[in-house]
Amino acid sequence: MAEPKVGIVMGSQSDWPTMKEAARILDELGVPYEARIVSAHRTPDRLWSYGKEAAGRGLMAIVAGAGGAAHLPGMLASKTRVPVIGVPVQTKALGGLDSLYSIVQMPRGFPVATMAIGAAGAVNGGLMAAQIVALSDPGLAGRIDGWRDDLSASIPEEPRDE
Amino acid sequence: MAEPKVGIVMGSQSDWPTMKEAARILDELGVPYEARIVSAHRTPDRLWSYGKEAAGRGLMAIVAGAGGAAHLPGMLASKTRVPVIGVPVQTKALGGLDSLYSIVQMPRGFPVATMAIGAAGAVNGGLMAAQIVALSDPGLAGRIDGWRDDLSASIPEEPRDE
Amino acid sequence: MAEPKVGIVMGSQSDWPTMKEAARILDELGVPYEARIVSAHRTPDRLWSYGKEAAGRGLMAIVAGAGGAAHLPGMLASKTRVPVIGVPVQTKALGGLDSLYSIVQMPRGFPVATMAIGAAGAVNGGLMAAQIVALSDPGLAGRIDGWRDDLSASIPEEPRDE
Amino acid sequence: MAEPKVGIVMGSQSDWPTMKEAARILDELGVPYEARIVSAHRTPDRLWSYGKEAAGRGLMAIVAGAGGAAHLPGMLASKTRVPVIGVPVQTKALGGLDSLYSIVQMPRGFPVATMAIGAAGAVNGGLMAAQIVALSDPGLAGRIDGWRDDLSASIPEEPRDE
Amino acid sequence: MAEPKVGIVMGSQSDWPTMKEAARILDELGVPYEARIVSAHRTPDRLWSYGKEAAGRGLMAIVAGAGGAAHLPGMLASKTRVPVIGVPVQTKALGGLDSLYSIVQMPRGFPVATMAIGAAGAVNGGLMAAQIVALSDPGLAGRIDGWRDDLSASIPEEPRDE
Amino acid sequence: MAEPKVGIVMGSQSDWPTMKEAARILDELGVPYEARIVSAHRTPDRLWSYGKEAAGRGLMAIVAGAGGAAHLPGMLASKTRVPVIGVPVQTKALGGLDSLYSIVQMPRGFPVATMAIGAAGAVNGGLMAAQIVALSDPGLAGRIDGWRDDLSASIPEEPRDE
Amino acid sequence: MAEPKVGIVMGSQSDWPTMKEAARILDELGVPYEARIVSAHRTPDRLWSYGKEAAGRGLMAIVAGAGGAAHLPGMLASKTRVPVIGVPVQTKALGGLDSLYSIVQMPRGFPVATMAIGAAGAVNGGLMAAQIVALSDPGLAGRIDGWRDDLSASIPEEPRDE
Amino acid sequence: MAEPKVGIVMGSQSDWPTMKEAARILDELGVPYEARIVSAHRTPDRLWSYGKEAAGRGLMAIVAGAGGAAHLPGMLASKTRVPVIGVPVQTKALGGLDSLYSIVQMPRGFPVATMAIGAAGAVNGGLMAAQIVALSDPGLAGRIDGWRDDLSASIPEEPRDE
Repeated sequence: MAEPKVGIVMGSQSDWPTMKEAARILDELGVPYEARIVSAHRTPDRLWSYGKEAAGRGLMAIVAGAGGAAHLPGMLASKTRVPVIGVPVQTKALGGLDSLYSIVQMPRGFPVATMAIGAAGAVNGGLMAAQIVALSDPGLAGRIDGWRDDLSASIPEEPRDE
Repeated sequence: MAEPKVGIVMGSQSDWPTMKEAARILDELGVPYEARIVSAHRTPDRLWSYGKEAAGRGLMAIVAGAGGAAHLPGMLASKTRVPVIGVPVQTKALGGLDSLYSIVQMPRGFPVATMAIGAAGAVNGGLMAAQIVALSDPGLAGRIDGWRDDLSASIPEEPRDE
Repeated sequence: MAEPKVGIVMGSQSDWPTMKEAARILDELGVPYEARIVSAHRTPDRLWSYGKEAAGRGLMAIVAGAGGAAHLPGMLASKTRVPVIGVPVQTKALGGLDSLYSIVQMPRGFPVATMAIGAAGAVNGGLMAAQIVALSDPGLAGRIDGWRDDLSASIPEEPRDE
Repeated sequence: MAEPKVGIVMGSQSDWPTMKEAARILDELGVPYEARIVSAHRTPDRLWSYGKEAAGRGLMAIVAGAGGAAHLPGMLASKTRVPVIGVPVQTKALGGLDSLYSIVQMPRGFPVATMAIGAAGAVNGGLMAAQIVALSDPGLAGRIDGWRDDLSASIPEEPRDE
Repeated sequence: MAEPKVGIVMGSQSDWPTMKEAARILDELGVPYEARIVSAHRTPDRLWSYGKEAAGRGLMAIVAGAGGAAHLPGMLASKTRVPVIGVPVQTKALGGLDSLYSIVQMPRGFPVATMAIGAAGAVNGGLMAAQIVALSDPGLAGRIDGWRDDLSASIPEEPRDE
Repeated sequence: MAEPKVGIVMGSQSDWPTMKEAARILDELGVPYEARIVSAHRTPDRLWSYGKEAAGRGLMAIVAGAGGAAHLPGMLASKTRVPVIGVPVQTKALGGLDSLYSIVQMPRGFPVATMAIGAAGAVNGGLMAAQIVALSDPGLAGRIDGWRDDLSASIPEEPRDE
Repeated sequence: MAEPKVGIVMGSQSDWPTMKEAARILDELGVPYEARIVSAHRTPDRLWSYGKEAAGRGLMAIVAGAGGAAHLPGMLASKTRVPVIGVPVQTKALGGLDSLYSIVQMPRGFPVATMAIGAAGAVNGGLMAAQIVALSDPGLAGRIDGWRDDLSASIPEEPRDE
Repeated sequence: MAEPKVGIVMGSQSDWPTMKEAARILDELGVPYEARIVSAHRTPDRLWSYGKEAAGRGLMAIVAGAGGAAHLPGMLASKTRVPVIGVPVQTKALGGLDSLYSIVQMPRGFPVATMAIGAAGAVNGGLMAAQIVALSDPGLAGRIDGWRDDLSASIPEEPRDE
């Protein structure tokens, strides 16, 4: 199996139904990845190691999903210069606005590339990771272009009743 | 000088105008404290050590202020069982609502005792720390009662034009 | 039965499904507590007495849950120096943002240690109370450390499909 | 001096610049009133007495202004059946949305007649009190009608540059 | 049948499930009322007449419920000095925050006594109307006091599992 | 079939359940229209052409619905002087507030006539288009007047239990 | 002087600094207009007449600005089929979000073409009115196209320091 | 001069005070870039060309700033697979929440890597671009590591009064 180029991490098992959308698109585009549970609060030492080793292990992007006071993406960004892509997971009380604010409003020095709330954000997190990897992988660039062309071609001209 | 019972920590020097309100009330009530800059993102290792050593050093509460994607209070709470009191610092674009959500919406297992946004929250963070220390310090309990009585007595019956 | 160290109070029976999460964690950690309905608006005199007697009865923390214009935690805080921990109960129209604002935005002098909205906040309210009690109870401190270690150990490395 | 028909109360001296707008309109309409500082948190016993005695003293409405976790109007409403009119005072961090939610989202049983945030709300609080008093005071009813007619008549047909 | 003292009006039939809570409490307290559909936008002339005739017909309060861009309460308030009580009906997209802002943020001169969003607000709208009528009806005042006493007495001391 | 006077466009098939409300009202009023899927992001060239040709094809209004980061209405407005009417489609996480902001907050020079969130907005988008067409079509003006009269006449005087 | 094709109306003189931006763009494009103060609450009868006479007087669009509980645009829309364009005026406490919700969230049947909050919205309100008038005025259509071309041409390729 | 690796684009000259923070950090890190004004609405054809040519010209990231209904980043993302980083510019009425929602809530297929609102977001946009370029430029990776080390080292242990 190829070495992973992308790490998909999430704060808890309950984020997986959202985050596996990122895995799916990477599978579809042929980008090797790994999926890990790394909780900022419950396994902070695991977060520390994951962040510190990311560059050395050859990861080119980390897609990190979390909900509520979502500290995982930002804390990873403080431990590695590998681009961290944040996915705000939807929450029950505040719809995910808490997740979004906790991820996107990072201070100077530690960017997190924030995606939309929920599953669309997870798909796009995977795509953004692929777009970054594609900068040095012309084959992948071509597959992304093809995927985008297919997406455009799949849109009918007129809506249909169902 | 007495060993500090309370740690006042903040993410950056720019939080000090807010957080020194916590220091002032602790001075007024005679609670020994220390003030430290501990940035979750810029000095994560300092955060790690501070959290890990808090209980052993005899700290009974940590008042942590931060703004924006405010990860400091929650990350400290993941490293220590000493009560962490969070103060959301006001922000320019979102008024501090980003700070509030990032601090208060902690997942099960890692509570942060969140105060109001801004300076009132910092005063109250100091007071809450004192109230916690007072549970085992009758002298301090008496001083808090006195402070509260003075506060009540200072309220005039009628408003006055200025 | 041991004297209660923690009071769990709520504005109405309808808050109990949320607030019993606080009771559960205190049971699990072996912290004696009592659970009471104390409505700020419907039984204000009961609130008055509860607040006034809290310190004398040996309560070391009060976990108070309420929803909407949630005045219970703040009014208790005005009557006692015992630390009051507020749990914003989720609401139908505004998701609990009304509860959160009514609890967290306390003026100088009367802190309420505010937790996350809903059940996670109730769990954490119980935990914060336990962490406060543990400052003078080394056995409990050890049980909390153990509970936290178990929590960390229970997190698998990889997500699993269900 | 006539016995007051309306009580204007506020949580702190700092609310007076807002709340004196209520006093002004009552002066203008010739409704006798009193103005008092009654803090829900700093002088809860004063609040208790004020609420309990309101009906017996002949007050026909209470205009209560407060900001942040604004508990004053709702707590007064729990102690008296005299109509309580709430004025949310503007706040620095959240613009007064915290005040509004804390005042308007009252549970079943204890209505607070909530006005707009800030000075316009204070004027309208005074007017609403006058409209209530006017139900049994035809002279006042006439003065209100006149004031409203004057207001309408004062509106020019076209805007003018200044 | 007694002449109505209170008018319950609403913008549409779809508001009735909310607004009949106002009718119920008035029934319970023995306050004669009428219920009418008066749409600000669909039947503006009906609104005009209703407002203009309210005082002359002896109405002492109007409880007006509406949702979304909720103009009914405010437009009634512009046509009559009879106290208008506004009930923001919950909405699908914005939870009723649109209704709340459209009702509560009235300009100087035309107060609307705004209640909580949804059914609790409708109950309280009825109660506020009753409290206003009770100012000149000692029997009703007594019934309100009794209702409030019953409400307080009905609250158990401890929560129960269900 | 008559040449379309109005274009109904939407970002995706999933917007059709909302946007067909616009089609229905145009059918009812006898305004010829076309319905098209034009995605700002997936078929940007289609958007370009649609905007550029709108005026020449005799379209008098375009009703454009989109959700989330809803760029379709604004991008169309940048390509044509034909009035563009925007319908914010409701979204799962943020209720459609994201759609609303993305559509209504257009910069100087490129207005989008924004409607309410969701199905009511789609109906009204169709009506606004019809009102624009009616300025030069007296027969349609009469049909709109009739439709509005029917709407007013259909409102019963009193609510009924169901 | 030409008969006005567009009515600019506003709730109060204080809205004129915002709304004169609509007048300016109409002047620039050579569209005859009138500017009027029509307060929904202070001069409701004036609103009634204005709405009822709009179509007969040959107005082709009404640009209506208002702030807070902004009822003017929606109430005008209930009295005329002439397209009503709403401009939410910025407010002190809530930034104009109250104005926006009160204008845009209209129920089925009575669309208001809502613009951005504040001065940009007023400019765009004027432009949208012009775009509507231009549908039957080819000369104006050409002037709008020219204005848009000039706007595009005025944008430099690179930003400059100031 | 080196060919630009990063494009900094913005909707208008007024965004430059924010966006030049991105330029500054790229200067500091020695990353060649270009700065361009590309308005989604005023110069849509320029946007089209910029997006279409980005990959071929060797750009490895585009940092795009815009405010209000901020369509520039998302529309660029629809025209190129080069990673687009979005910077929400702060706005007067809504603080930049409109910009944030318009940029971050992109649909499946077209990710925009969204940064914090305002100047901190612009700095971080530049940094994120540099981190992406550094994946294939070890010298730059080292300079970023150095910059981060300096940032950490610059944080004093204790706050100082000023």
